[in-house]
Amino acid sequence: MPQPQELILNINAGSSCRGITMKDYMKQIFLMILLCGSVVGCVVIDHSMEPTLEAQASWVVLPILNHTATPQAGRRAEAITQALLHSAGVENLQRYPAVFQDDLLLLGSDTQLFETALKWAKEKKVRYAMTGTVDEWRYKVGIDGEPAVGVSLRLLDLDTDQVVWSAVGGQSGWSREAVSAVAQKLIKRLLDQVSLST
Amino acid sequence: MPQPQELILNINAGSSCRGITMKDYMKQIFLMILLCGSVVGCVVIDHSMEPTLEAQASWVVLPILNHTATPQAGRRAEAITQALLHSAGVENLQRYPAVFQDDLLLLGSDTQLFETALKWAKEKKVRYAMTGTVDEWRYKVGIDGEPAVGVSLRLLDLDTDQVVWSAVGGQSGWSREAVSAVAQKLIKRLLDQVSLST
Amino acid sequence: MPQPQELILNINAGSSCRGITMKDYMKQIFLMILLCGSVVGCVVIDHSMEPTLEAQASWVVLPILNHTATPQAGRRAEAITQALLHSAGVENLQRYPAVFQDDLLLLGSDTQLFETALKWAKEKKVRYAMTGTVDEWRYKVGIDGEPAVGVSLRLLDLDTDQVVWSAVGGQSGWSREAVSAVAQKLIKRLLDQVSLST
Amino acid sequence: MPQPQELILNINAGSSCRGITMKDYMKQIFLMILLCGSVVGCVVIDHSMEPTLEAQASWVVLPILNHTATPQAGRRAEAITQALLHSAGVENLQRYPAVFQDDLLLLGSDTQLFETALKWAKEKKVRYAMTGTVDEWRYKVGIDGEPAVGVSLRLLDLDTDQVVWSAVGGQSGWSREAVSAVAQKLIKRLLDQVSLST
Repeated sequence: MPQPQELILNINAGSSCRGITMKDYMKQIFLMILLCGSVVGCVVIDHSMEPTLEAQASWVVLPILNHTATPQAGRRAEAITQALLHSAGVENLQRYPAVFQDDLLLLGSDTQLFETALKWAKEKKVRYAMTGTVDEWRYKVGIDGEPAVGVSLRLLDLDTDQVVWSAVGGQSGWSREAVSAVAQKLIKRLLDQVSLST
Repeated sequence: MPQPQELILNINAGSSCRGITMKDYMKQIFLMILLCGSVVGCVVIDHSMEPTLEAQASWVVLPILNHTATPQAGRRAEAITQALLHSAGVENLQRYPAVFQDDLLLLGSDTQLFETALKWAKEKKVRYAMTGTVDEWRYKVGIDGEPAVGVSLRLLDLDTDQVVWSAVGGQSGWSREAVSAVAQKLIKRLLDQVSLST
Repeated sequence: MPQPQELILNINAGSSCRGITMKDYMKQIFLMILLCGSVVGCVVIDHSMEPTLEAQASWVVLPILNHTATPQAGRRAEAITQALLHSAGVENLQRYPAVFQDDLLLLGSDTQLFETALKWAKEKKVRYAMTGTVDEWRYKVGIDGEPAVGVSLRLLDLDTDQVVWSAVGGQSGWSREAVSAVAQKLIKRLLDQVSLST
Repeated sequence: MPQPQELILNINAGSSCRGITMKDYMKQIFLMILLCGSVVGCVVIDHSMEPTLEAQASWVVLPILNHTATPQAGRRAEAITQALLHSAGVENLQRYPAVFQDDLLLLGSDTQLFETALKWAKEKKVRYAMTGTVDEWRYKVGIDGEPAVGVSLRLLDLDTDQVVWSAVGGQSGWSREAVSAVAQKLIKRLLDQVSLST
């Protein structure tokens, strides 16, 4: 789906043509401001080099640590990541058993949940494990209440215990969007960097 | 059903034609902003490839895990999913016994409910099980209070224990809509990807 | 009844014709916004294929499960459904004994009430049983506080234990309406899909 | 992805052409002010001289101390820093075990966490350790609520216990940005000063 934001970039690219008068040029800039200010959120993404992943290897989604004040933001990010990985073509994809969450409910510690799930994944001889952190997952306070999401993802190779890929991004939406929709867009953009050889 | 959002994108696509004057162009942009800001919510959807499902197989709706602060959001999503699957043509469709919910009411743990229902479904020799997570189910705080919903769905083949299809989406409505209506629209869009051979 | 929402889509579809001037186009859009924003609530409905129901069969309204935080929303939906079924021409219509509600009042569990009533209905040799869930039944928080209702209905054939029809819908009203009025409209629209052969 | 901010720089670069009249020039300046004021935030950065780092040395991300009232801001900065270092090409990069966080949860003391992790890193014979402080991590209070972030980073050579590089910066975004996106931009700019010989 073409993003409105990319549209803006196209307008700007177009405005560098020399045949356009200054007046038109300014109109377009105002247009851009208007769009930016009212409709389009911003996104920033950084990622490591594209890894070479073994085809047909087994994958697992491990707990994503929640560094926000939003309860269960890690669980939500996991659910979205799992579905996006599956839709990206990862066939052999598991998620850590959800019952692990109950065992640690009282402590409320994501890190212990991660250790438990990591141990489970290694016993299961899974090759690639996706984990990460949620750094922001909220609606901003204010008149508009735009959604804002910050997520980092890391792909572990459990054979070598190395991080084979990592990415981090922050995205804000416009005031009518749902925070889960913005998170999905952001996580999708992050995962777009991982090319799955099939 | 043609979506208003797609319409907007078409307007933009159309506005890149060189035959349109700047004035018309700006009108269209204002129009877009107006539409976006006042009337139309946004939706984002990702799904895996369309599965090949066995016709006449038995289906079950398993508990949908609630990752939100809204009580019983999982139960609501199940009821909507069940009705939508039925209306999509799934004849042999059950839901896990509702009494399971009572047994686990005190703990309030969706994951235990899921395990219990999954075991029940396997004993019943059901083929396909629809489950998932609710990541958002609320009205946003603010003047308008638009509804915002985030749902992920997974279809399990209980014969092979594989996820044969998954989808995830987030949708926000405009300020006059009910959150259950937005959820129904979103879940319907997600399920539209599953083509049922009859 | 043509839906307002579908009307809007038609306007848009029509406005993509090249014969319409920009001015007309914008007028239509403003019209749409006006309608949507101030007067008309929104409704979304999905239902399975129309069942073939035996004429003169006996009917019962079973407990409708309450998934909301509004107390007794299920009881309210039952009362409305019962009256609407009767006004639609169902002669032989019972409701489960209200005393069942008292027995389970302390637990407050709708699912146990449903099981008790279902057992009672089967003993009474009733043919069709209408049940369902209430997913939303409230006024939205905010300046306007529009009513919002979400209901799903299922018609069981107690001879075969199959779901012969199901429907789900969400509807919001405008700010001056009562939530029970909106619920009645919604349930009526859902039941309109069931044609009773007489 | 080209950032709007970088675009502005291009416009300015273009305005230094001598063929443009003064009037046009001033228009562009006003334009720039407008853009700066409404769209782009401001940034200030200071850093020590570029260090000469040993290639292929092992790195670790140690706890970043949180000097703000925002809970877990240090953890968030660590996650972003780790991903950015990895994306900058640091292959042999670890993070201190997350379970250390639990041990110190009751005390809530970042300094003890730092000491524990530093000791752990020295036992692991890691060469370079990145640490620092978070001095601001919030949305400003007000109508717009722009995000504002202040971060300092220090790179320790654990062989010599010397600080081989340090940088400090503050950045504010425009009102539609997420604070995590601004933090990521700032930390990236800080890390840009460290050239990694490969």
